[in-house]
Amino acid sequence: MDIDTLAEKILAGDRRALSRAITLVESAREDHRAQAAQLLQRLAGSGRQALRIGLSGTPGVGKSTFIESFGMMLTRQGLRVAVLAVDPSSARTGGSILGDKTRMPELARAPQAYIRPSPSQTHLGGIARRSREAVALCEAAGFDVVLVETVGVGQSETVVAEISDLFLLLLAPAGGDELQGVKRGIMEMADMILVNKADGDLKPTATRTCADYAGALRLLRKRPQDPEGFPKAMTVSALEKDGLEKAWEEMTTLADWRRAEGHFDRARAAQARFWFREDVKQALLAELERGPVKAKMAELSDAVAAGETTPTLAAEQMLAALRTG
Amino acid sequence: MDIDTLAEKILAGDRRALSRAITLVESAREDHRAQAAQLLQRLAGSGRQALRIGLSGTPGVGKSTFIESFGMMLTRQGLRVAVLAVDPSSARTGGSILGDKTRMPELARAPQAYIRPSPSQTHLGGIARRSREAVALCEAAGFDVVLVETVGVGQSETVVAEISDLFLLLLAPAGGDELQGVKRGIMEMADMILVNKADGDLKPTATRTCADYAGALRLLRKRPQDPEGFPKAMTVSALEKDGLEKAWEEMTTLADWRRAEGHFDRARAAQARFWFREDVKQALLAELERGPVKAKMAELSDAVAAGETTPTLAAEQMLAALRTG
Repeated sequence: MDIDTLAEKILAGDRRALSRAITLVESAREDHRAQAAQLLQRLAGSGRQALRIGLSGTPGVGKSTFIESFGMMLTRQGLRVAVLAVDPSSARTGGSILGDKTRMPELARAPQAYIRPSPSQTHLGGIARRSREAVALCEAAGFDVVLVETVGVGQSETVVAEISDLFLLLLAPAGGDELQGVKRGIMEMADMILVNKADGDLKPTATRTCADYAGALRLLRKRPQDPEGFPKAMTVSALEKDGLEKAWEEMTTLADWRRAEGHFDRARAAQARFWFREDVKQALLAELERGPVKAKMAELSDAVAAGETTPTLAAEQMLAALRTG
Repeated sequence: MDIDTLAEKILAGDRRALSRAITLVESAREDHRAQAAQLLQRLAGSGRQALRIGLSGTPGVGKSTFIESFGMMLTRQGLRVAVLAVDPSSARTGGSILGDKTRMPELARAPQAYIRPSPSQTHLGGIARRSREAVALCEAAGFDVVLVETVGVGQSETVVAEISDLFLLLLAPAGGDELQGVKRGIMEMADMILVNKADGDLKPTATRTCADYAGALRLLRKRPQDPEGFPKAMTVSALEKDGLEKAWEEMTTLADWRRAEGHFDRARAAQARFWFREDVKQALLAELERGPVKAKMAELSDAVAAGETTPTLAAEQMLAALRTG
């Protein structure tokens, strides 16, 4: 299929064309990269805009159940929902636990929904580019909501936050001194914290956990992109489908406010600038990971760690080596 | 004075030589840089190790009073104390509110203490290098404790955390819903949170604030370099000199544990590797901030923000431009 036909089919909402296009942007092959760039350039003019929702949660918090229930609720409201995964670990394990359609059987069958399994092989550096390009493709295909989930391994929350309009953190209830293992710094990104499993015996614990996080959020500095009351902590039960409409209401309130205040477009423009700069930086820094340069870096780093030289002197030596090439 | 003489005097604890050496590492002049490198190389073999304590606190939390009282308490225990400041804002204002000896009149006169005013002019990129080299000089001069303070502007906490063995966050008491303005992510770095001004009318508020932060710290993931009970939140009163011995006890407990478990040396080696890598990266990325390259970056960034091109395409264009150079 040529790129023009592929673009037309995507704009018409054809899922198979969309899947094919995502496979294209996931490829590291040079000819595929060129075709993907051409396709994205073509679709950039569609003017379509989805609400991009980033969702982070460690295994065990009920992320699949949440996406299934939350996604079904959205489709019942007539919205078209796409689900993507950013999963750096799949590059290492060679297989993926995320994006698997069997995790969300109902949503996977819903005609209004599209679930993209995460790729089984990705070179790590390409995750950010692949993910934001896949989001752009879903947007062009006319989805109203694009959910991007991550288990939060390594830098993946940053990737997800920088391609999302809203960023949600899903947590499980935890009693008193029990540690949640929230990665330090992740609260920085959250627009909403959802404490899941607020059902049955766990309900009181969920309520308390929610209050703890609401308290912790209040201790942090207010961001310009937040209206009064945000970031917010809420309880939900994905299992009993409880609190999901309320959570969606809060999300639309937040998104509407940001749109009205100009934060929405500003954030997207800032994200585009961020990714452009990141791509350039990563390409430059990738030079340090290649062949003889990499070996020299490792050698000097060991000398510095052993106290044989100073970081400053070693860096000067390295740069001299880079310049003489 | 030649470098050999300067090195000898520093090792003998001569303050004027130390001040002169710090001025040397602060200089951006190429001949000064070469001399500084030579000097640091010479002193590297001294084998002296201070406890490096990083301290962050916004204006108004009583940082000067804390350093004065805490520093005096240490000198009374027979310890030699140096105080340095990492203040990126001074590069912009051309003058500094930090490191001013009039802020700590008693400590400034103490023969056991050394206060270095922060430099009035620094190129921003050089702050990290200058700061860690000044710390190394104080260490070679035989100080037992090197306190590095920052107001936490921009990336300065990261700089301070990456040159410190212990990182303290100093806060003021804040009632109920009053926001502390703790920068998101800074709790990630803190080994101890000290709530100051736990005296007079503010004492109950300080106690409550401390409990809030203790709760927030418990919700974060445990780090391998922390023994049971750390990171820790405590109240102190710098004014009434209350809780300072107790805080120092906790610091030495933490430092001793880290030394015994190997975390101390491991952290220093990791910091040295970090700074080496950072120096190389910064030098590479500095290429993007020069003349025609900078202009091209700005132009492409604007095009990306306006949606005229994608980050990926723009980055490819930029790299092609860099290569043909």
